[in-house]
Amino acid sequence: MVYAQEKMTVQEKIIGLEKAALERWNHGDPTGFLELSATDVVYFDPSIEKRIDGLEALTKLYEPAKGQIQVDRYEMINPLVQATGEMAVLTYNLQSYVNDKVHKWNCTEVFRHEPDGKWQIIQTHWSPTQPALK
Amino acid sequence: MVYAQEKMTVQEKIIGLEKAALERWNHGDPTGFLELSATDVVYFDPSIEKRIDGLEALTKLYEPAKGQIQVDRYEMINPLVQATGEMAVLTYNLQSYVNDKVHKWNCTEVFRHEPDGKWQIIQTHWSPTQPALK
Repeated sequence: MVYAQEKMTVQEKIIGLEKAALERWNHGDPTGFLELSATDVVYFDPSIEKRIDGLEALTKLYEPAKGQIQVDRYEMINPLVQATGEMAVLTYNLQSYVNDKVHKWNCTEVFRHEPDGKWQIIQTHWSPTQPALK
Repeated sequence: MVYAQEKMTVQEKIIGLEKAALERWNHGDPTGFLELSATDVVYFDPSIEKRIDGLEALTKLYEPAKGQIQVDRYEMINPLVQATGEMAVLTYNLQSYVNDKVHKWNCTEVFRHEPDGKWQIIQTHWSPTQPALK
């Protein structure tokens, strides 16, 4: 229903974009996140020794992940969107279930409202929840 | 020089605010970050099992840290500010030196430009750099 889509809040839109990218990731396809990211995206995850700058570098980082990830199910816990007109900050805890093992993550995504009307990620920060307990 | 201060860029201002709070933290005083944070701040660090919501909860988390931290020196590596009119995203790698040991961090701070003209943190994400290597 077009009317319902137009009335979608920024919160719903941002969470929907993230879930769509995450579901592709969970089936071995990192291009959902790459398509959602701006050329000037910056990125942290626990595998890298310093911040990654730019979509080209992020694309290289994700290349070996293609087809290697299979998450059985996930829970996006307590997603929150803090928005102004031009930016929206999405934070949540993620639980990814792989072969009965659960992986717990902290996630921060910053989206920017681009001139063409799309929301694109300009900052991603993934970190393991309580890594010292592992 | 007032003129120079007025011409300070958003980038310089945000990095200056962060460094001032960090330097207080490094001498056992978490109130620099608390004063810089908005009431609706959300927060991740590796000690907590899920995102912390709100300044009151963050204040409780930081209470035991008072007087317990002594960082000899630090390096804020490659700080970057991505800004629109109302929000600014600061990302950097941090190296904190304590008794010849270095602690390496990934940091994302999101600042919001408040109606009173101040920039306040609405999202903080600290994570250890490459925790699996520890």
